[in-house]
Amino acid sequence: MPEPAAQMGRPLPVLFISTLIPIALTLIVHPLIPVFGLSEYFPLPPQPTFPALQANVGFALLALVGTLLIVPKVGPAFIEKGIRGRDLLKPGGRTSGPWIPECLGLPCASLYLLLMMLFIPFPFSHIFQVAGNNGVGREKFPIRELTFYLTSLLSLFTATMLGFIDDLFDIRWRHKLPIPLIAAVPTLLVYYATGGWTWVVLPESVGKLLCSLGLPGWTGAPVVNLHVFYYVYLVLLPTFTTNSINILAGINGVEVIQPLIIAMSVTLNDLFFLPIWPEWLLALLGVENPASGRMLPWAVGQVVTRHLMSLYFMIPLIGVCAGFLWHNWYPARAFPGDTLCYFTGMAFSAVAIQGHFSKTMLLFFLPQIFNFLLSSPQLFRLVPCPRHRLPHFNEATGLLEPSKAVFERAPPLLGRIILEAFQILGLTRLERAPPPADSKSGEKTPSDSWPQDGDLISATNLTLLNVLLVRLGPMREPTLCLLVGAGQVAGSAVAFAIRYGVGSLVYGGDRR
Amino acid sequence: MPEPAAQMGRPLPVLFISTLIPIALTLIVHPLIPVFGLSEYFPLPPQPTFPALQANVGFALLALVGTLLIVPKVGPAFIEKGIRGRDLLKPGGRTSGPWIPECLGLPCASLYLLLMMLFIPFPFSHIFQVAGNNGVGREKFPIRELTFYLTSLLSLFTATMLGFIDDLFDIRWRHKLPIPLIAAVPTLLVYYATGGWTWVVLPESVGKLLCSLGLPGWTGAPVVNLHVFYYVYLVLLPTFTTNSINILAGINGVEVIQPLIIAMSVTLNDLFFLPIWPEWLLALLGVENPASGRMLPWAVGQVVTRHLMSLYFMIPLIGVCAGFLWHNWYPARAFPGDTLCYFTGMAFSAVAIQGHFSKTMLLFFLPQIFNFLLSSPQLFRLVPCPRHRLPHFNEATGLLEPSKAVFERAPPLLGRIILEAFQILGLTRLERAPPPADSKSGEKTPSDSWPQDGDLISATNLTLLNVLLVRLGPMREPTLCLLVGAGQVAGSAVAFAIRYGVGSLVYGGDRR
Repeated sequence: MPEPAAQMGRPLPVLFISTLIPIALTLIVHPLIPVFGLSEYFPLPPQPTFPALQANVGFALLALVGTLLIVPKVGPAFIEKGIRGRDLLKPGGRTSGPWIPECLGLPCASLYLLLMMLFIPFPFSHIFQVAGNNGVGREKFPIRELTFYLTSLLSLFTATMLGFIDDLFDIRWRHKLPIPLIAAVPTLLVYYATGGWTWVVLPESVGKLLCSLGLPGWTGAPVVNLHVFYYVYLVLLPTFTTNSINILAGINGVEVIQPLIIAMSVTLNDLFFLPIWPEWLLALLGVENPASGRMLPWAVGQVVTRHLMSLYFMIPLIGVCAGFLWHNWYPARAFPGDTLCYFTGMAFSAVAIQGHFSKTMLLFFLPQIFNFLLSSPQLFRLVPCPRHRLPHFNEATGLLEPSKAVFERAPPLLGRIILEAFQILGLTRLERAPPPADSKSGEKTPSDSWPQDGDLISATNLTLLNVLLVRLGPMREPTLCLLVGAGQVAGSAVAFAIRYGVGSLVYGGDRR
Repeated sequence: MPEPAAQMGRPLPVLFISTLIPIALTLIVHPLIPVFGLSEYFPLPPQPTFPALQANVGFALLALVGTLLIVPKVGPAFIEKGIRGRDLLKPGGRTSGPWIPECLGLPCASLYLLLMMLFIPFPFSHIFQVAGNNGVGREKFPIRELTFYLTSLLSLFTATMLGFIDDLFDIRWRHKLPIPLIAAVPTLLVYYATGGWTWVVLPESVGKLLCSLGLPGWTGAPVVNLHVFYYVYLVLLPTFTTNSINILAGINGVEVIQPLIIAMSVTLNDLFFLPIWPEWLLALLGVENPASGRMLPWAVGQVVTRHLMSLYFMIPLIGVCAGFLWHNWYPARAFPGDTLCYFTGMAFSAVAIQGHFSKTMLLFFLPQIFNFLLSSPQLFRLVPCPRHRLPHFNEATGLLEPSKAVFERAPPLLGRIILEAFQILGLTRLERAPPPADSKSGEKTPSDSWPQDGDLISATNLTLLNVLLVRLGPMREPTLCLLVGAGQVAGSAVAFAIRYGVGSLVYGGDRR
């Protein structure tokens, strides 16, 4: 089946877009109607509990539509400027495939930032207080939340800009590493300047243990002040959220489906904290006092505000990722570049730091943590690491197969032990040197030559993508991407089970 | 005299740099010493009244040194990526001159933004309150000022990013126009969201006049609430500050010397508002109560804070502009691109809007206002406008001469009237069609042909640079740049005379 030229872009879902735009505008305008005293002219349903949140959903739909429209619009300019690449996993991709615009995370991130700036007056002005509604902070102006909001935007801007500079100038790996750190500077410094919280809640049992040991200065409460170490942890968080998405990459759609599902998981988790749930559902779930609308009875006050702030960032992020996935899905018409990874990774860190739920956030990164641990033998050079580790495209079958790291000398002992262990766990497939062809001639191979009979000569690359191909056999590129998405969903399910199942047991129920 | 190749960059003032670095670090570390309780180990002079301001000067020196170092470092990467141009006003410039990196405003702006982010804890944390000093806001945490600071940074980020995108993709003129507006969005929305002030102080006489007319709702105070029109004015301000610098461009150094002198003028003006002046100077100037250290006796409270905030932005901006001027000075080794214009223009708008001194700011733009008014007949196409209006380089003499707009048909009547008026004022030099060569033959030229005898066939382009060349004759490029700088200084002198001379008379002395 002939594919249309990649430069032409994927046809847009015109009906979908033209339906979404009026819905988005209605969601945004609706909360403004009583503010301007126009209620009698527009017989719309009564205002929701969180008018700014409703407007935010409208902005998210605009983000989705805008991303759908802007990517094919600016793609040719990127190709013309040489910001482009070929798809290595397509027939003839390496040499004769069509040019595909690279780094289109930039327009997506720019659109997101613009919409987030235009959203500022909704949660952060007196308009909804005047109208008798409740935005963030019912009585007084939420200037503290505004500071957090602006800081997160600054961090996102920094991440986007550095990501784009990285994509444009091909910054070397060791110069890249501090990029997420620099982007986190505004978030961390404002966190510090506004009297940042450096306490960590411990599991109840650990608290009791420390109490019984009679440590000096220990008050018995199951919290511990980590002081400067908390900042070290906060500095490492954006480095992880950014780079862990960046190294689980290489096939169409996979760099976008990860943040899409993570953002959806964070959104669902945030929604648990809002008093918006219908009484019948809460009664069904056996929550105490279902009339309050609270899924978590202890979620009141600042906790609600923090998760509301997180929602303001996450819902439009879902819109942007979904819109970009349309163009990045197999066969990709646009590549995200590092820009999108830095941008989305920083968004997750920013809301986790300022919302005080970084441990929960890490739970939503289970596939990334697994992929990072799996990759670490290659990242730390215990096992040889080729320039690209993406799967191998078999032009004859049109399927992806695991790619191999072929050894030019024997890997170090620790690397060999890890590889053998990984093979037992089914995480890699090893290849050993065949018996020497001239063994019949009776000559002994010199003992220092390599490879000897049975020596390891190659291993499949240690990435989640290759593991899936090793375990489940060759498959088409979109199938593999869907599998990663399914894994991410499963990871989130486990995360929720840990957070609200095991977490409640270990920490005690009331976890703010 | 053979010029060294432009790619090599200008030799760095190594001694100057190595002197500045320890000074900068001392200025930054000094205010921190009592905070960490180390006063007894470091016998430094006592703390200044404004410790954060002293640290800011240290950051400005770092910005200067950093810009000096970073520009030649990243230049080759820009040339390699095709972000480069040739210097049109050099021998053989248009075709065979060396490539010069374009758009180096980007690393300058990035460095500035990074330093401004690192500066956040100095004015905006409790550290100087603990140490018994006074930063911004002596008693409570200055969260309102922090909001303004973050918003300005966001606007600067937006301006830088859009400027770079513009430079990279050569955005068309009409798509460019809203760029400063978009960049101003965070500043304006936060100004609005935090209950923005939309009152304007009127001259006393106007206030009295309106009062005597008995307008409804007029309270007699010489202030008027402009409501939404104030926002229209605030939206136009960044468009002006940005584009007015951008159109006074074309010769080496001129795009950087303008913001340099404007930033110095704003800094001087801000310093007038701080209580830091020596008693003898104030006594000499005849200021009342010289012991207070106040140049303007009425400058207390929030006015001081606002101008302190402005200083935090302007002093490092001086550092960046001075550093970049070193590389952009004749013969230029680096071009700023639109990025620098957007970035500096936005900085001036942001501090003026949030510091409530936009009228004073406009006074420092007198040469730009003059250049804009002068250019407007060409910008609005009353007079033909060629693609480039920069002066003409005479390869024989090595001097710059006024460039001409050559007419292909008669300009409209209004355009001709303006040109004649400008010639009388000495602002342009017109060229008229000579008597037809075949006039002796007795044939009459057809009356509809053009040009007839005496018709205008060209005019020197209507820019400040060309006016200087028309008035003062051909000159070398650096001389012309210095003249523009001198004009900017003279403009600032006039601005101060208006602000503190005429302004006091018209508005009454107490001007907050």
